[in-house]
Amino acid sequence: MSLYDDAVGYARQHQDQSLRALMELLRIPSVSTLPEHKPDMLRAADWLAQRLRTLGFEGAEVFPTARHPVVYAEWMRAGPEAQTILYYGHYDVQPTDPIDLWRTDPFDPTIDGENLFARGASDMKGQVMAHLSAIEAILHHRPLPVNLKMMLEGEEEVGSPSLPAFVQAHKTLLKSDFCLNGDSGILAADVPAMTISLRGLAYFEINVSGPATDLHSGGFGGAVDNPALVLCQVIAAMRDKDGVIQLPGFYDKVRPLSAVDRAEMAKLPTNEAWWQAQTGVPALAGEAGFTSTERATARPTLDVNGFLTGFIGAGSKTVLPAKAMAKISMRLVPDQAPVEIRAALEQFLRANMPPTVTWDILEHASCRPSIIAMDSAPVAAASRALQAVWGKAPLFARTGGSVPVVGHIKDILGLDSMLLGFGLPDDNLHAPNEKQHVPTFFKGIETYIRFYEEIAG
Amino acid sequence: MSLYDDAVGYARQHQDQSLRALMELLRIPSVSTLPEHKPDMLRAADWLAQRLRTLGFEGAEVFPTARHPVVYAEWMRAGPEAQTILYYGHYDVQPTDPIDLWRTDPFDPTIDGENLFARGASDMKGQVMAHLSAIEAILHHRPLPVNLKMMLEGEEEVGSPSLPAFVQAHKTLLKSDFCLNGDSGILAADVPAMTISLRGLAYFEINVSGPATDLHSGGFGGAVDNPALVLCQVIAAMRDKDGVIQLPGFYDKVRPLSAVDRAEMAKLPTNEAWWQAQTGVPALAGEAGFTSTERATARPTLDVNGFLTGFIGAGSKTVLPAKAMAKISMRLVPDQAPVEIRAALEQFLRANMPPTVTWDILEHASCRPSIIAMDSAPVAAASRALQAVWGKAPLFARTGGSVPVVGHIKDILGLDSMLLGFGLPDDNLHAPNEKQHVPTFFKGIETYIRFYEEIAG
Repeated sequence: MSLYDDAVGYARQHQDQSLRALMELLRIPSVSTLPEHKPDMLRAADWLAQRLRTLGFEGAEVFPTARHPVVYAEWMRAGPEAQTILYYGHYDVQPTDPIDLWRTDPFDPTIDGENLFARGASDMKGQVMAHLSAIEAILHHRPLPVNLKMMLEGEEEVGSPSLPAFVQAHKTLLKSDFCLNGDSGILAADVPAMTISLRGLAYFEINVSGPATDLHSGGFGGAVDNPALVLCQVIAAMRDKDGVIQLPGFYDKVRPLSAVDRAEMAKLPTNEAWWQAQTGVPALAGEAGFTSTERATARPTLDVNGFLTGFIGAGSKTVLPAKAMAKISMRLVPDQAPVEIRAALEQFLRANMPPTVTWDILEHASCRPSIIAMDSAPVAAASRALQAVWGKAPLFARTGGSVPVVGHIKDILGLDSMLLGFGLPDDNLHAPNEKQHVPTFFKGIETYIRFYEEIAG
Repeated sequence: MSLYDDAVGYARQHQDQSLRALMELLRIPSVSTLPEHKPDMLRAADWLAQRLRTLGFEGAEVFPTARHPVVYAEWMRAGPEAQTILYYGHYDVQPTDPIDLWRTDPFDPTIDGENLFARGASDMKGQVMAHLSAIEAILHHRPLPVNLKMMLEGEEEVGSPSLPAFVQAHKTLLKSDFCLNGDSGILAADVPAMTISLRGLAYFEINVSGPATDLHSGGFGGAVDNPALVLCQVIAAMRDKDGVIQLPGFYDKVRPLSAVDRAEMAKLPTNEAWWQAQTGVPALAGEAGFTSTERATARPTLDVNGFLTGFIGAGSKTVLPAKAMAKISMRLVPDQAPVEIRAALEQFLRANMPPTVTWDILEHASCRPSIIAMDSAPVAAASRALQAVWGKAPLFARTGGSVPVVGHIKDILGLDSMLLGFGLPDDNLHAPNEKQHVPTFFKGIETYIRFYEEIAG
């Protein structure tokens, strides 16, 4: 018998109620990007604040921001000696376009077999509500073993523009030991997993100018440099034939992968055949000495995201373009810092751009990478919780993409984030027929209960 | 006293008539690209055929083509032992847009000071009519010393699409010793010049494909190659840092420049300061060991004319593009052949494209380069004619651009073309307020008279 079996028992007895609560929240069409849903955003925020009050949270408040409010509430009765967790979630959802491809009304949650179909069912109202059902089950029997601060934003699907200012303005209120971010998933219904690392991002636009105006390539070709060819040459020099990025000091801060790290990644189902099938490329390629999974999730990259110069219509125009533009971005891994990568890029461009052109760079996006140690207390607790519920050890995955909010919380509050959520890869996130796998939702509730049991030590 | 002084005297006495004849032709708005001017195209063709008949030409005919007719007529009374010249000209003109910028009606020729303003005044009705006035002046006194075949097309301003088929279909009719092409100019009203060489063109589009669809650069960046970066690297490798093009065998057929060639080019007014001022580049650059004039007119080049991939709007999109497209072109010099350059490009691409992408190339345009020897009989005759009329030796210029018709006439009839015309660099070709400098028009008539005197030996 384990200490929290009673809470798990309560959760099992109340599965219908948990599902009904989730469906109630899913019926509020909280689409953050569409102005006509602004009242729905407020309804969703109020609904969550009320739910938190009902559960016994204090200070529940709907904080207005420049766009959509942040819901905050806290349960602090574990006392000043206990650790404090900041839970991050979001209550906004993606739009439903293309609506014709939905088989059910996206805001009339519908159970079909083992799945619950609705916009936001997996991303991430299902995860928020699984966590709240776990809290309810624990509190039915005893106090929480930790202090818990809930922060639920309404702008995640539009890039969290108001969140950094909110966090900055409430640094004291949000002070915690680590962040539990529920906006995540596992690898399959029978493959428990945790995301322990996210890549960062540094995204730039490079503009190169040569002649004062577009020139005739017959009249002037040969006498003046070609800005597009210059930009090709400079970009080409950024990566060598082994896939190694040539910006000065680019790898200096990259944390090497340990044998344990690599062994964990080797357990993942994303083998070479998987990457080949997912992408449909003629041949896989990347940094020499690493697997595709390592290259896509645990090693930094440099990609050309866009390039425009000269004549791009059908046929030919004999123009020698005055300007050329490229968008390039680097995915970063711990402990690379976007600001240092920008400096490295500028140094590289100064060294490689010829005197035949002028140039500048714009920074379009920046996000620091993050990682949480597999042997850290929160990950160890979550790992044991997953093992208890699924009956097998979780896999430790790294995500190649970037989650800006994790970076903001690290930058402003100094907190590491642990991602623990129960979405599935086939949940149709951001697509028609989004769904939550109901048995996984219930297992998620139990996992969060076990996590609080484990984290209390 | 020179033998043809009487013809020159006649031309001087009839300058008003020559100008009036030109103005009559300029009043016909023969804009080849606009369907509503199709009747005007026919009127212009008929007008020229009638004019040739009046001058004593035989077999004057307006040959229909797929679009606009070719006017043909011949004067063959010099007999089978005399040489035969094929004169090439065109009677179509550019559209007048932007019409608001014209100070006079483009089809109501207006003399203002030394200039005659009208669409086509310089390009090239003025050149065609200067030549016909010269023929008229000679024939008033004696037979022509050569056989002369006149071919005047109506599609030059739309790329001469019907001309190759016409020339191919009339190879016997057009059989000649060389071609006199009047579609040319001199360097300034007091700087007589001849164009002795034109660059050719080989224009391609390269398409590169990697993943089956655009991918998220976070989820997949690093595991698959980036088609845009591949295309940058392949294009970058086409030119080394000395500006030398790296396609295999690219320079094999390039005729080296002799000391005489380079000395002639050094006489031209296009010095380094001129190229700098004309282009507004931060610094001039090009193939090491050559002047800007040599680089732009007498050496082959490779330019990127267009490049498109991925996201090109404002801001950022973290896309790893499935495809990338570039348009590149090479300007060719004698004796490079477009077909060999295409083979070299394909060989280069086969050797340099990695197995991570598929690719293909499209050929959009092809034109062989041309040159006529400075010491050839036609050039020597034209040079003496220019010297006689201007009182100073002409400069020998090379044009960096391409004239497809010169290539067609070489390819199909095997004839070299000599360019001899009297446009000026500031004649506003293809632009509002096109004009012909009237004193230069009259000097042009005299130069053509002297040319026929000289070519007869």
